[in-house]
Amino acid sequence: MKSPIEPLERVIKELGKLPGIGRRSAERMAYHLLAATEDEAMGLAMAVRDLKKKTRPCKLCGATTSEELCAFCSDPGRDRSTICVVEGMRDLVALEDTGIYRGLYHVLGGRLSPMAGSGPESLAVGGLVERAGQDQVTEVILATNPDMEGDGTAAYVAEILKRKSGVEVTRLARGLSAGGQIELAGRDSLGAALSGRRSLPAGSRPGSKE
Amino acid sequence: MKSPIEPLERVIKELGKLPGIGRRSAERMAYHLLAATEDEAMGLAMAVRDLKKKTRPCKLCGATTSEELCAFCSDPGRDRSTICVVEGMRDLVALEDTGIYRGLYHVLGGRLSPMAGSGPESLAVGGLVERAGQDQVTEVILATNPDMEGDGTAAYVAEILKRKSGVEVTRLARGLSAGGQIELAGRDSLGAALSGRRSLPAGSRPGSKE
Repeated sequence: MKSPIEPLERVIKELGKLPGIGRRSAERMAYHLLAATEDEAMGLAMAVRDLKKKTRPCKLCGATTSEELCAFCSDPGRDRSTICVVEGMRDLVALEDTGIYRGLYHVLGGRLSPMAGSGPESLAVGGLVERAGQDQVTEVILATNPDMEGDGTAAYVAEILKRKSGVEVTRLARGLSAGGQIELAGRDSLGAALSGRRSLPAGSRPGSKE
Repeated sequence: MKSPIEPLERVIKELGKLPGIGRRSAERMAYHLLAATEDEAMGLAMAVRDLKKKTRPCKLCGATTSEELCAFCSDPGRDRSTICVVEGMRDLVALEDTGIYRGLYHVLGGRLSPMAGSGPESLAVGGLVERAGQDQVTEVILATNPDMEGDGTAAYVAEILKRKSGVEVTRLARGLSAGGQIELAGRDSLGAALSGRRSLPAGSRPGSKE
């Protein structure tokens, strides 16, 4: 149903452009905002505005930041020998959330996708080659998504890095999802889990005496 | 996972306040906005701002409008003998969307809900009593929601209207949802459908000769 009030219809349309939001959800949100206090609605409006006005890509790695250098590049506590290459900020935040990685990042800002018409020019790789060539850098981890386009993107970045620097290039491990079930794992995941199988240290073998 | 970038985290939090939006959906939307063009993000920000800045309740009926009087109260083509009372704008738009109703509206802006602590003072009924007392008005339709609190709200409004004016007060019919199945209809709906059953005109009886 189309709203008879233009400002309301506009909000419904704008919300409907967001991923995963259909007309009904957009309506529900818009009517909620209509009934909300001015502070509440303005809180959202200004937060969205500031997201564009107050952030920019880090000069070194491309990560979103409100300063010139991002929180990682400007942190003297991070391990500068490793650069983890991600497609976008969401992946960076997910990796960071593991609490395991302490190195630096490089945000490509996209992926190779012939279907979507995004080629090498859509990837921010120039700065990466230069960074990877620095003496202190020993490893570049390619953390693109484990799908066809992610693999293609990784292959492309690996090729460029090999040509231009002597750094070790690695890729995130593939296999079963933690907490998943073998019978539900896809063929590709199960295949990757098999071919990437690892020896257990003797002491940790189930049923072993030591 | 908490985002390391303050403006991004703020958008995630604000979006997460909307109904039906969990942390994951809010993140998905926020990262989409981060990657979107400035025009796209500002379109949403300004639409939400204008929703509050450019709308107000109609002076007569309380419906949301960008003018002093709403699209219904200011339309000389609407039937001024009937006032349909709704809890909020969403209900008004849904009723309007049927294309059947051509009268005026009155928006209560809430419902009686002892559990949520909203009593009679949360309902805009003052103007309604005055409007219902005008000579041209012959019927007030109570179109509150068909649930306990909606029924309570309707009963309260009906009581006030009976005391103060001689207008006919009606309530929306209850019964089976169009397209629904009897075996899935709840007990209350089925009971209402039974007790509210209607005679079919002879000519339309299935199997009848005429």
